[in-house]
Parts: sequence; C-alpha cells; structure tokens
Amino acid sequence: MGLKHKPTLIMDEIRVKRNIARMAAKARASKVNFRPHFKTHQSAAIGEWFRDVGVKAITVSSVVMAEQFAQAGWRDITVAVPVNLLEIDRINELAGRITLHVLVDSALAVEKLISQLNNPINLWIKIDVGYHRCGLLWYAAETIIALAQTIDQNQNLTFKGLLTHAGHTYYATTAAEVRKIHRQSLERLNKLKQQLQTAGIPRCKISIGDTPGCNLAKDFTGADEIRPGNFVFHDLMQLRLGACQAEDLALAVECPVIGKYPQRSEIVIFGGAVHLSKEYLTKADDSQVYGYLADDSADGWGAPKYDAPVISLSQEHGIVQLPPDSLKRIEIGDTVLVLPVHACLTANLYREYLTTAGQQISRFNSRI
Amino acid sequence: MGLKHKPTLIMDEIRVKRNIARMAAKARASKVNFRPHFKTHQSAAIGEWFRDVGVKAITVSSVVMAEQFAQAGWRDITVAVPVNLLEIDRINELAGRITLHVLVDSALAVEKLISQLNNPINLWIKIDVGYHRCGLLWYAAETIIALAQTIDQNQNLTFKGLLTHAGHTYYATTAAEVRKIHRQSLERLNKLKQQLQTAGIPRCKISIGDTPGCNLAKDFTGADEIRPGNFVFHDLMQLRLGACQAEDLALAVECPVIGKYPQRSEIVIFGGAVHLSKEYLTKADDSQVYGYLADDSADGWGAPKYDAPVISLSQEHGIVQLPPDSLKRIEIGDTVLVLPVHACLTANLYREYLTTAGQQISRFNSRI
Repeated sequence: MGLKHKPTLIMDEIRVKRNIARMAAKARASKVNFRPHFKTHQSAAIGEWFRDVGVKAITVSSVVMAEQFAQAGWRDITVAVPVNLLEIDRINELAGRITLHVLVDSALAVEKLISQLNNPINLWIKIDVGYHRCGLLWYAAETIIALAQTIDQNQNLTFKGLLTHAGHTYYATTAAEVRKIHRQSLERLNKLKQQLQTAGIPRCKISIGDTPGCNLAKDFTGADEIRPGNFVFHDLMQLRLGACQAEDLALAVECPVIGKYPQRSEIVIFGGAVHLSKEYLTKADDSQVYGYLADDSADGWGAPKYDAPVISLSQEHGIVQLPPDSLKRIEIGDTVLVLPVHACLTANLYREYLTTAGQQISRFNSRI
Repeated sequence: MGLKHKPTLIMDEIRVKRNIARMAAKARASKVNFRPHFKTHQSAAIGEWFRDVGVKAITVSSVVMAEQFAQAGWRDITVAVPVNLLEIDRINELAGRITLHVLVDSALAVEKLISQLNNPINLWIKIDVGYHRCGLLWYAAETIIALAQTIDQNQNLTFKGLLTHAGHTYYATTAAEVRKIHRQSLERLNKLKQQLQTAGIPRCKISIGDTPGCNLAKDFTGADEIRPGNFVFHDLMQLRLGACQAEDLALAVECPVIGKYPQRSEIVIFGGAVHLSKEYLTKADDSQVYGYLADDSADGWGAPKYDAPVISLSQEHGIVQLPPDSLKRIEIGDTVLVLPVHACLTANLYREYLTTAGQQISRFNSRI
C-alpha cells in the first residue's frame, strides 16, 4: 500500500470479521440475544458485517448515533446511557420511526417521558451493580420496583427489563476476577428480577454489556442479552486483561517517523494525542504507555513490541522508546504501526478506516 | 441561548480577543516578532482577529494545517515540527505559493530537502533545550554548526535560525521555575548563536514558543520571535501554572446532566472522553481531574469550582463530584459548564465554537 504520509487508521478486516463471528457464535451457543454496541466502530459498512451473522438489533451511546444507524437501516436500537431529557423531541421523532429503547434511573426521567412522549418507547431500568457510574443501586429494590410499576402503568412506555454495564471489569487484574464480577452482576440482577416478579411485574429481561465479561465468561445463565462493543477491534486494554489474544487486535495507526534521537534511544512520530487519544496503560514502574509499536514483520501486523512503548504524546507528535538495535533499523521517512490502548477513542478521531487490503471504509462524522 | 441538548463548545469572544491583544502588546513592548501558533484554535475566523492586532506570520503543527491557513490567506507560515519527509510533495507545492518555514534536526532531513525540493524554503534548526522531545541537544554545537553550513550552502534553502519549544515549563510548579527555564533556554540558544557566528554563519534568529514562558517571562532579551498558541483560550493547566487568571479562561463545554446520584453526591453528564479529551490534572491526593465545573452565576462563566471536579470519563459520559448543597440545586435535564484541562485537545474534538453571544465560528475539519 505504500508508506502513509500522515497518521492513518488501519483495520485488519479479516480479524474484525473473525472477532464478530466469534462473539456471535458465543451468544448463539449461550442462548442470549446479541445486541452489539456500535459506538466502537460507528460505521454503516461495518454494521453490515453484523447483519451477515444474523444481528438485527443494536446498541449505541447517543441519540445522534441512533439517528445515523436508523438512517443506515437499523430498526431496533438501544441508546445505552440514561435518557437525555434535553433531546426529548428527537427521541420522540425517532421512537415514531423505529423500535427505540432508552434507559432510565430516576423517577424524574420517567415522569418527563410520560408527559412529553407521544410515541411508544421501550424502557430499561439501568442498574448499578458496582461500577458506580450510572444506575440505581442493585440493593435499592423498593425504588426499582416502584419505577417499574410506574412504567408498566403507562401506555406509551414498555418496561423491558434491567440493564447494566459492569465497567468495573476493566479494573480487574485477572480473568478470574472478571468472571467473578460477571457472575456477581448476574446474581444481583436476577435477585431484583425475582423481587419484581413477586411485586407483580412478570416480564423482565436482563441485559449485560462489558466486553471483558462477554469475552471471558463461560456461563451466561440469567442473561437474556449481551451488548459488547469493543470486541470488534479489541485493543491493548483488552489484551492486558486477557480478554483477547494479540492476533485479535484489529486496529493499528500507521505513523511517519519524523525524528530520531540515538542518545536517548527514541524516535518521534507524526502521531499525537489527536491521532491516538491520551488513554494510557500504567506499567509496573508507574510509567504511562500510550500504545506499543506492532511487530510489522508479518502481513498486517504481529504482536505488540513491549520494548517499544509510546511514552509521551503532544498534540501532533509522540515519543517512542526503542531498544538500540531496533532504532538502528528505523530512519526518519519510514513509518511505524502503533497499537492503540483504547480502540473506541482512537477510532473516534478518524473519518475512515483503511483496510489492510487497501479499501476505505467510512465512519459517521461524530465530530460534534 | 437556551440549554444545549448535546455537549457544546462555548467560547467567550471577549476573553479571546483580550488574550490576543495582551500577548500582542507584550510582544510589541518586548520587541519580538509575534508568530502565534494556530494549532490551538484552527479557525480562519479567529485567525482574522490576529490580523487586527498586526499579525502577519503564523505557526502551525502540520502540513495540512499550513494548507488550510494558506487557503485562508496567510502567506508566511512555520510548520513547527521536524519536517515530515513523506509529505515532501505537498511541502514543495506549498513552498511555491507562500513563504514556508520548516524545522530540521538531522543531516538526513536536510539532504532529502536538498535533493527533492525545487522551491525555496526557510529552515530552522530545532534545538532541544531540555524538554527532550525533538531537536538537536543544545550542547551539540559541532553538529548544529555543520548542519547550518550545509543549509547555508544550498540555493533553495535559507537558514533562518534556531527554534525551540521549552515544553518542560509545563512540568514546573511555580512561576519562578517557568521563568528560570525561559531564561536558561534563551542562554543556551544564544550561546549557540555566537558559536554559529564564529563559524561564519552571521544571520541567526532565535524563536521560542511555550505559552507558560511567554505569559510569565518579563524579559525577552535574546529572542527574536515568540510562538505561543494556547494563550488564545487558556485552560486549567495554564491556570494551575499561574500562567493565566481565572478570568482569562475563554473556553467551556456545556453538558446536559443525565444522571444524579445523591448517595455518592455525584452527577453524570453527557460529556465524555470524545467531548473533553482524557487530558487530566493530578490532585495532591494523586486523584485525576478531567475538568472542573465553572461558576455559572455570572455572564458567561466565573472561576473553576474546585469542589466540583470531573473525576471520570467514559466515551460519552462523565462523572462529576459535587458538594451536597450544590447537588440539591442541579437536576437531570439541566446543563453544566465544564472548564477543560487542555484547551487545544478539547477544541480539536469539535467542528465549531459557539460564542457566548450566540454566534457559530467554524474550525477546520481536522479529523484525519
């Protein structure tokens, strides 16, 4: 394909399709509905690859993203953040066109939806199972039951069930810890489900989401639906958690080398915070890493070179440490491949993907 | 203006113009050329406000940004990163249209420019005065002299001088420390200038850049040019360094409140890593802060509310800690104003600014 003259987001299409097929097969085998989160790729074309494995319903993280994928033909969409009451008109309009699901975690939101919506909408009560970002706490059964009852009594609102994002799996350090959080989340949600049934709410689905849990869990008993997103590309965070293998990493950023500094065994790349994002991993010595160079000896790319970390990012350039023998083989005017720490945030900075086969694949313009 | 339904980048035009006027006046009084860095705002319209204070030459951080501002009528542009040899054709084309300056810090780059350029170009040797990102080390006089001589002997290349970015001022903890770095940088550059003169290179300008140094230094003796960028907006980083006052903070992001969690005295806003960037400040207790809410009692906004930090960012939402009495006055469906940690990275995520007077001001689409 020739060397890229600017930071370029490269996607290994074979790996992406393999990642999709694997998660779809796991959902099928586990008898759970697969409602993938499309915030990671934000691409109509990649969305089509999910249709090929039978996906009919999706998850997004904003109303504008729901509008974009509705435009691309998706007819069943969950906006998986607490409903933004300031977008009520757009939500109403969208609910008139597609099967729309939104999340609530307060009586106020439900009250506003009741008074302001005139199209039918599906509601999930967002439950905080321990991540402490959004949701009603898993042990606040009384509040949750009251909310479900209010929803259930309104004609436009359909109570679908309980939904969580156990994002604290990202703080785990072992696969066993991820599995424990996954199991605990399902137990907490199913206990609530029983309490809802006792209170006269018989229909209640359970929806869970995080990619580490979906990758590592072996048992989905008690879940009706999974909503992973990041697995489509995977990244260094997932790899560190043991939630994927190096050969599953489907995104890399090709960056020109613009500086070489043998005295400190570093190169500087055209590739900064606006090309990679400032998400980082912390090493054992407390230093921060914004990516690793990939072994580029193979077709596409190989495993991360842990001796070649991106150690610092400015707006437009980054510093990469290299062992002296690697440094000798790199010159300014070459390019290197950087594996991103967090694929969702890196991809968000680009208008398009370039596949390893040389095809351009657009993303929705999510710049605000 | 009404509440914003999505994260919206708000600019206080009066503060921006005051920030510009102040730095222009300081440059004039200090008898240095003012070549502002436009990577911060990336807006043709804001560029015009610099013309109003007499600016004729600018700095950018990529070739595409140089092309965009050339298109907007700027005729003298420095691309202040080591020249990217993979963009040689575009550089050559641009050098045929405008007065173009690029940086070099290697014999290889100079050699390639000599063999591949056929339009005149101005070269600055990038000097590393202690930041250790790019540049030849300030004490590598022999290498620097040899490079200047090679440049000087070539017809298409004009040696302009020595340029640095003393980015280590950002690691300083006091204004005195910033001033010390500023003074040391100028001493190191001027010593080199003398050595160049002794070696038969009489004409050598000195160009320095960082906003903290330009804000805090009282004496620019030994500098010919300053290239600050961030000062146009300022941000929490500059404020913490004492490089600006709270009333100079000219950007804020208005974010809808989508969740309220009294038991942990937190709200969740629609406003995440893709709206603020993951740049953070570290507090005394080692915790990270991705922004502070602004006091919104005044027109526009007031000082940061240090008791209302953004403590966590996901892709689309953020968690804000609030004192219980502030929490009582905020409801879901309201909006809050977040002051960004690093204005350059936050602004980069938006297509446009909305002024406090309600006017939309475009940015170049820098999405890659």
